[in-house]
Amino acid sequence: MAVRGMLTTALRWDGQSLGLLDQTLLPGREAWITVHGAEDTAAAIRRLAVRGAPNIGIAGAYGLAMAVAADPARLEPDAALLRGARPTAVNLSWAVDRVATAARYGGPEAALAQAEALHASEHAASAAIGAHGADVLERTGARRILTHCNAGALACAGEAGSALACVLELARRGAAVEVLACETRPLLQGARLTVWELERLGLPHALLPDGAAAGLMRRGEIDAVVVGCDRVAANGDVANKVGTYAHALAARAAGIPFLVAGPVSSIDLALPDGDGIEIEERDADEVRRTPGGELLTLPGTPVRNPAFDVTPAALVSALVTEHGVAEPPDAAGVRALAAR
Amino acid sequence: MAVRGMLTTALRWDGQSLGLLDQTLLPGREAWITVHGAEDTAAAIRRLAVRGAPNIGIAGAYGLAMAVAADPARLEPDAALLRGARPTAVNLSWAVDRVATAARYGGPEAALAQAEALHASEHAASAAIGAHGADVLERTGARRILTHCNAGALACAGEAGSALACVLELARRGAAVEVLACETRPLLQGARLTVWELERLGLPHALLPDGAAAGLMRRGEIDAVVVGCDRVAANGDVANKVGTYAHALAARAAGIPFLVAGPVSSIDLALPDGDGIEIEERDADEVRRTPGGELLTLPGTPVRNPAFDVTPAALVSALVTEHGVAEPPDAAGVRALAAR
Repeated sequence: MAVRGMLTTALRWDGQSLGLLDQTLLPGREAWITVHGAEDTAAAIRRLAVRGAPNIGIAGAYGLAMAVAADPARLEPDAALLRGARPTAVNLSWAVDRVATAARYGGPEAALAQAEALHASEHAASAAIGAHGADVLERTGARRILTHCNAGALACAGEAGSALACVLELARRGAAVEVLACETRPLLQGARLTVWELERLGLPHALLPDGAAAGLMRRGEIDAVVVGCDRVAANGDVANKVGTYAHALAARAAGIPFLVAGPVSSIDLALPDGDGIEIEERDADEVRRTPGGELLTLPGTPVRNPAFDVTPAALVSALVTEHGVAEPPDAAGVRALAAR
Repeated sequence: MAVRGMLTTALRWDGQSLGLLDQTLLPGREAWITVHGAEDTAAAIRRLAVRGAPNIGIAGAYGLAMAVAADPARLEPDAALLRGARPTAVNLSWAVDRVATAARYGGPEAALAQAEALHASEHAASAAIGAHGADVLERTGARRILTHCNAGALACAGEAGSALACVLELARRGAAVEVLACETRPLLQGARLTVWELERLGLPHALLPDGAAAGLMRRGEIDAVVVGCDRVAANGDVANKVGTYAHALAARAAGIPFLVAGPVSSIDLALPDGDGIEIEERDADEVRRTPGGELLTLPGTPVRNPAFDVTPAALVSALVTEHGVAEPPDAAGVRALAAR
């Protein structure tokens, strides 16, 4: 199908400061904020103004580069501050560590060059992920593709991030794709962000409650699932936005492929399996209230709000990275992708 | 544990008209509406002022009894109107059919007596369901019990409906239960109704997004799942609120019991399996907007909004009714429960 849409950019670096499209205000308002150092960058990451494992990595990299440019003595405390802004994704500490190493050996200029290099390489990764993912989807003949949360340009650099890049490339190759976007409670990244990106890209889509996905898979109304990832363990277990694991179970039960797409910076070889991944538990009011503040339950209701879950490698049909595809992602396959 | 809470009533029959606790306003406001005939009863069912398969059956029964009391000629058209108010649950057409039969042979008085008998028998069923379900849960040692949507007194007659009756009885027998209530998008019956009922009952509980349930089961943080049902096919397949099927898959993967609780009026022996169950697709704005009207996505976003899904019998550990338990619910077991 012809794809004639607008591409999205979530981060802009002007050489001095970092512009972030404030994702907490989408889709109602497109407003940019500017951060100048580590503290405001960490705050933007924590409140999800910038989100998506690769993009928070890039933001963290620039945040540290700006901090050491202002005061080289801030290197260690600000690196720790940024690494701790969100615990589950590995890209953030990965990116911060690289900038810190560059700063230690080459000073502020090397730190900035490293941040810019990371940004450019994540940008390039997106196109390669899209091509590899479209190859897998093309082979299976998938047209009606479910995704969860937002793994588009708002989450990763590039034209359409990771999972959405696969679908966009499939559409560009002529397939009549339809994207089924799960709303992704509690913060509704699917309803707020993925729908907004798909509308801009001009890709046909429909929004559905997270709980509706499994039933549609069972009824044969979905051909494949493609999601992003926040951390991939050495054995191929995948941490991603809460709700992902249930989709993986349903895809397996329905006999349809379940693809995980992300840059190799999401792979954490130091972690043997998913059980070791720290799952961030977020504020109860994210569940109790809407983004606009409307109360959805009794005010003091106790809440469980894990932001992520772990999908075991055995349920993943293919791990799609810029270095290629591990299909399925066993330990050897994951190591090979990360090493290349 | 000591349970000292307030019980909930969702329907009140005063001999002339039917009072309904307007569930669309909970938990913020406790307001009763009164319906006097078939049309306003059908409207209340459609807009979910009264909900839950057994309760809409009772409401439909009184609705038809009131209609034929006012004008016996309204029997056939009003029975059709009420049967069609919601298509997925079988209890509604089951109850309306019984009242219609009584009216045909015995006139308005027989119709009313039939409606009152149905109400009383669903009320009694709740206590028996609670006892049978608590037996199953007690045997497994379950304490942390997940439920979906609302299968309490707001959905069924009785002290605590079907699924919640099992948990309430388990608590009364001394178990330190905790109920994990899934919020149940899109209409948030878990967040709005189940939490409100649990708070009144004084049972410890926590609210979670639907997508968080599977991950918690995988991490060993949930001991059992108990849900209600809108229709049970002859082979034991279960239609219930959308999102149920994903919980059943996750429970099976985690090796924990998955119980379905409901009165035998939910069993539809005429239906060989779940594939024949009509799945109601509801309005897109239920997904696009909050109950308070807040827009959660772009205004015209296409939506899939199936209200129910089907859980295959193979994933159900036990079907709990007032007549006993089918464990697991195979065709012979379901037939035996329905026949008794």
